[in-house]
Amino acid sequence: MSINQDEWFIEAYDGISAFGLKFSEKLYEAQSPFQKIEIFETPAMGRVLILDGCFMVAQKDTFIYHEMLIHPAMNLLANPRKALVIGGGDGGAVTELVKYKYLEEITLCEIDEMVTSSCRIYFPEVSRGLDDTRAIAAFEDGAAFVARHSNHFDAVFVDSTDPVGPGKALYEVTFYQSIKNSLRPGGIAVFQTESPIFMSDVFSETVEKLKSVFGNDRAIPYLAVIPSYPGAMWSFTMCFNGDRKPCIDMASGNENVPASLNYYNSKVHSAAFSLPEFVKNLARIVD
Amino acid sequence: MSINQDEWFIEAYDGISAFGLKFSEKLYEAQSPFQKIEIFETPAMGRVLILDGCFMVAQKDTFIYHEMLIHPAMNLLANPRKALVIGGGDGGAVTELVKYKYLEEITLCEIDEMVTSSCRIYFPEVSRGLDDTRAIAAFEDGAAFVARHSNHFDAVFVDSTDPVGPGKALYEVTFYQSIKNSLRPGGIAVFQTESPIFMSDVFSETVEKLKSVFGNDRAIPYLAVIPSYPGAMWSFTMCFNGDRKPCIDMASGNENVPASLNYYNSKVHSAAFSLPEFVKNLARIVD
Repeated sequence: MSINQDEWFIEAYDGISAFGLKFSEKLYEAQSPFQKIEIFETPAMGRVLILDGCFMVAQKDTFIYHEMLIHPAMNLLANPRKALVIGGGDGGAVTELVKYKYLEEITLCEIDEMVTSSCRIYFPEVSRGLDDTRAIAAFEDGAAFVARHSNHFDAVFVDSTDPVGPGKALYEVTFYQSIKNSLRPGGIAVFQTESPIFMSDVFSETVEKLKSVFGNDRAIPYLAVIPSYPGAMWSFTMCFNGDRKPCIDMASGNENVPASLNYYNSKVHSAAFSLPEFVKNLARIVD
Repeated sequence: MSINQDEWFIEAYDGISAFGLKFSEKLYEAQSPFQKIEIFETPAMGRVLILDGCFMVAQKDTFIYHEMLIHPAMNLLANPRKALVIGGGDGGAVTELVKYKYLEEITLCEIDEMVTSSCRIYFPEVSRGLDDTRAIAAFEDGAAFVARHSNHFDAVFVDSTDPVGPGKALYEVTFYQSIKNSLRPGGIAVFQTESPIFMSDVFSETVEKLKSVFGNDRAIPYLAVIPSYPGAMWSFTMCFNGDRKPCIDMASGNENVPASLNYYNSKVHSAAFSLPEFVKNLARIVD
């Protein structure tokens, strides 16, 4: 069918596939030093945040992305004290992290302060974790920030945009080495690693780079479904500084995992690591 | 961004969200007695079949839908001989079924013969199972067809369109009762039951109807990711005529499951039944 594009926001991935939402109102538009920021109100998915023309946050499905970025690793960590989120200026990852009472320090390193300030206004339920007294916000380049830290974090979450524009540096091997170096022994880093369907090359290459830095059996992809992202089948890759947990695909039964989540549970944890055949092939995983 | 709609096919679900593909060529267009049939060549997803404006088959992801419709149930059935597909005029479900050498009779009941004849021309790799000597095609109303069969099929797969137009009758309780009646004791029926994200009401209502017919613990939803369908997170519901298998969420290790699949494997089987919290709530499932 034909749609009136004055009333829709459309993200055309690679110029050949598109996801779009009709909007009732454009709430915000600004050009930051780094990217164009837009916020729309939509009947299908609630408020949405667009960065440089790409859907980043949609109220209806953002819980899936943030829960699946944070809780699988947190479930496996025995006694984490310090966590870092790189990117993630919307605050959603921090909001999941503050649910862990034993975390002492939760740092957000976001290059674009305008993303955070606009999300605090328009997505208060997503960004509210930033109000927690343990949350620290550093508005600077994530690669430079992490390079100054060594043997410091128990968990690092790389909540990047796509490998273009300000997110590009977050897909380079030197960055991955800095992340590994910033982790304490036994620490875990989680990277969003794009869609194995529409971005299969980026997915394969990123997993390979992570394997080259962390070790062949210490960079393990897992999946979730994010309807507003291109391809919808979305990957994260969990990386271990030190020995790989023998059963990363089994939830530890950690009693500290928050009870009231909307997507994640211990069965979903195992399911996320159960990769379809074509994804195993892309990631060169042999059972 | 703005797109030139003369070069794109866009499916706008409910008029408020859209998935679209740029096409290089329109290969086919016809109005059958039941629906409008269109086939496009697209750079992002290969050839696509559109029925009444909705994406039905895309070469890039159709293996996910058809494998996940067929193999979970086939993995659980001990000794099936007769299988029925209702809808599924593209032939993709039959093509998965013919991989089971011990099936003796594989019936396709599709209301719209023009869907099948156009798919045989434009999607030969999807429809090729129809050439198998065990495959029988009946071009008639699925509800009427199944009502004439009692205690006959080991497996029935309802590969329906959305609950509008020709697919509407396939969402009614009387149809579900006919399906149950058509099954032999121990038989399994699988229904595609829409997206728990964008069609959460249809999903909930359909699962409730199926529970009312098959029994509360004998209608079990499971999930797969179909990027070209609205919401991408897609549900099927597996229903048992007789006792529910104690471990339907565990692959049986059936040696007859075809080895060379692209999505399904025994871990994916278990993962598919591991429902996110919000889906459990929609389906009123308590652990």
